[in-house]
Amino acid sequence: MRATTIHAPYDMRVEEVPDPVVQQPTDAVVRVLRACICGSDLWAYRGVAARQPGQRIGHEFLGIVEEAGSGVAGFAAGDLVVAPFVWSDGSCDFCAEGLTTSCPQGGFWGSVGSDGGQGDAVRVPFADGTLVKLPADAASDDHLLTALLALSDVMGTGHHAALGAGVVKGSTVAVVGDGAVGLCGVLAAKRLGAERIIAMGRHQDRTDIAKLFGATDVVAARGDEAIAAVRELTRGQGAHSVIEAVGTEQSMRTALAIARDGGAVGYVGVPHGSGTGLDLSDMFDRNVALRGGVAPVRTYIPELLPDVLDGTIDPSPVFDLAVGLDGVPDGYKAMDERTALKVIVKL
Amino acid sequence: MRATTIHAPYDMRVEEVPDPVVQQPTDAVVRVLRACICGSDLWAYRGVAARQPGQRIGHEFLGIVEEAGSGVAGFAAGDLVVAPFVWSDGSCDFCAEGLTTSCPQGGFWGSVGSDGGQGDAVRVPFADGTLVKLPADAASDDHLLTALLALSDVMGTGHHAALGAGVVKGSTVAVVGDGAVGLCGVLAAKRLGAERIIAMGRHQDRTDIAKLFGATDVVAARGDEAIAAVRELTRGQGAHSVIEAVGTEQSMRTALAIARDGGAVGYVGVPHGSGTGLDLSDMFDRNVALRGGVAPVRTYIPELLPDVLDGTIDPSPVFDLAVGLDGVPDGYKAMDERTALKVIVKL
Repeated sequence: MRATTIHAPYDMRVEEVPDPVVQQPTDAVVRVLRACICGSDLWAYRGVAARQPGQRIGHEFLGIVEEAGSGVAGFAAGDLVVAPFVWSDGSCDFCAEGLTTSCPQGGFWGSVGSDGGQGDAVRVPFADGTLVKLPADAASDDHLLTALLALSDVMGTGHHAALGAGVVKGSTVAVVGDGAVGLCGVLAAKRLGAERIIAMGRHQDRTDIAKLFGATDVVAARGDEAIAAVRELTRGQGAHSVIEAVGTEQSMRTALAIARDGGAVGYVGVPHGSGTGLDLSDMFDRNVALRGGVAPVRTYIPELLPDVLDGTIDPSPVFDLAVGLDGVPDGYKAMDERTALKVIVKL
Repeated sequence: MRATTIHAPYDMRVEEVPDPVVQQPTDAVVRVLRACICGSDLWAYRGVAARQPGQRIGHEFLGIVEEAGSGVAGFAAGDLVVAPFVWSDGSCDFCAEGLTTSCPQGGFWGSVGSDGGQGDAVRVPFADGTLVKLPADAASDDHLLTALLALSDVMGTGHHAALGAGVVKGSTVAVVGDGAVGLCGVLAAKRLGAERIIAMGRHQDRTDIAKLFGATDVVAARGDEAIAAVRELTRGQGAHSVIEAVGTEQSMRTALAIARDGGAVGYVGVPHGSGTGLDLSDMFDRNVALRGGVAPVRTYIPELLPDVLDGTIDPSPVFDLAVGLDGVPDGYKAMDERTALKVIVKL
C-alpha cells in the first residue's frame, strides 16, 4: 500500500509501505476512505516538532474495516468507522472516565512504529476501545463523509475547548484562532447554547465560516487593538468563556486578556514556545481559570455523531481543498501558505 | 485610637492614628473585637511585597458597628459583624455574581489610604455590600468568636481552593501547604464530602490539626519524595483535586505533579516569584486544570456561617497564639519564625 511519510521539514512523500496486518487480537485494519491534514501536522512539516526520517503522519481518518482480530467484539469487516486521533484501550480507569487521551495503553497515529492516517490503510490497536461505528449508508454520501471526518479531531477538539471554557446556555464566548479547530470551537459553542460568539480573525474566508457556524461578532484587529475591541463588545468586561485554539505564547496572552474576571480559558492549541504566555498574578487577581488540553475526542464522538448525522451541526465547511493521496504534499504546502484552511484527502 | 503600622521590613509598630469616621453615607465604623495576622501579611513583613512607611496592615477582623452612615440600610450601631478581607459595593455585576473580589469599587484593607484590621477600629466602605451580621450573643463566646474570625479569610479561602480543585462527594484531595489556609482547605474539602484527604507537611503540630480537620493521610516528605508518596497513595495516578495554598513556584510544581490526569489544581496561594511553576505542555497532555485566585470570601460567609455557628466546622484550631494589640509585632515575629501557626489579636 501507499502512505504519506515525512523525511525532513517540507519533505513530504507518498510512497510504498508494508501492508498493515492484524498483529494483536485486539487490532483491526481499516482501509481509509477519507483522511485530512491537521494544523498540528504543520508543526512537523515546518520542523518545529521533530520527526524521524520516513515517519508516518496523519491522525484523522475514517474508513472501512478490512479485517478485525479475534479479540475484537464490536467490529467486523465491512463496517464504516471513524477513528479519534489517539487510540485507547477502552477498559482502563481513564477510558472509563472518558479521558481516553490518558489511557496508559493509548498512542498517537503516526508516532514511531505506528501507522498514520494519511495512507491507504491503518492498523488500529484496541479497535473496540478506539473506533466508532458509522451508519453504512454514509459511505456513499460524500458531503456527510466530509462532515463525519471532522469528528476524528477538529469537531471534538472544538467541543473540548468549549467545555473547558465553561460554555453553557447564554454564554458570551470569544474564540482566539481562525483555523479549523477555532471554527469548530465556534460551532461547538453555538451547539452548547452560547448567546454571543466573538470570532477573532483577519481572513474573511475564515470569518465567513465562523459566521456560518454561529459567530455573532467578528474582530479582525490584532494585538492590543483586538483586546480592546473584544472588551468594547463586552461592556469592558471581557468574555466569560474564551477558546484558545492556537498554542502560542501570544495567543494565550490574548486569550487571558479578553477573559472576563471569573471566567475561563479553554485551551486546545498544542503549546509551543519556551514560555507559557500565562501571567499567574493576573489570573489570580481576576480568578480566570485555565482548563483544557489534548481532547479526548473518542468520548465526544457518540455525543456529537447524532447531531452531525441529522445535520444539526455541519463542520464540513472547514475542509476547503480536496486532494487524492498523491496530492498530500501539495496539501501541506497549501495549508502552510494558508491558501487552504484544511485539506481533505479522498482515497 | 491605636493601630498597627509597617515602617520597613521587620519594623511593625503599634501607634496612635486618627480615629476613623464615616466619610461616605455608605460607610460604617467598626470597633474591632478580634483581628489576626495572615500568612500573606508576612510577604510585607519580610519586604517581599512593598509597603509605604507607616502604612496600615491587617485584613481580617470582626467587631461591633460603632456608627453607620445614613446610606447604610443593613447595619446599626451595636451589631456584631465580620468583614471579609476585601470590601465590595454589593451592587455591581461582579458582586451580583458572587465575585466580590472583582468589584470595581472594592479594595483591600491596609491599602494606602484605608484602615487595616490590626487596630482598634476600621472605617468600612460600602458597609451593606461588605459586612455580614453575626448573632449578638456570639460576642460573649470567646471560642466561637475565634472560629468566626476565620470566616474573614482563611476558611473562605480554603473553601475557594476546594471549589477550584473541584472537590465533590467522594473526591481524593491532596493539600500543598500546611499553613492556616491549607488546613482550612482540608476542613473545606471534608465539608464538601471528600473521601480521602492527603495533607502534606513536615510539622506535626500542623498535620495534627490537619487530621483533626479530616485529613486521612499525611505526607511528611519533601520534593520528589513527597510526589512519589502521594502517587503511591493514589495507585500511581495522583489526586483528582489538589489544593495549592502556598504561592511559590515550587509549591505549584508539586501541586501539578501530584494532580491526577483530568484533575484540577485549586490555587489560593498568592503567586510570588518570577516564574509560575507551570509546565503548560504537561498540563495540556494530562488535561490538568488550574482554577482559583483571590477568594471572594464575602460570598462564602453566608454559606459557611451556619456550619460554624452549629459546630459542623470549627476552624478555630488554626489560631495557636493570642496577643493583645501591643503584642502584634511579637505575633509577626512568631509567625515569621514559624513558632506560631496563626496569631489572633484580642482587643
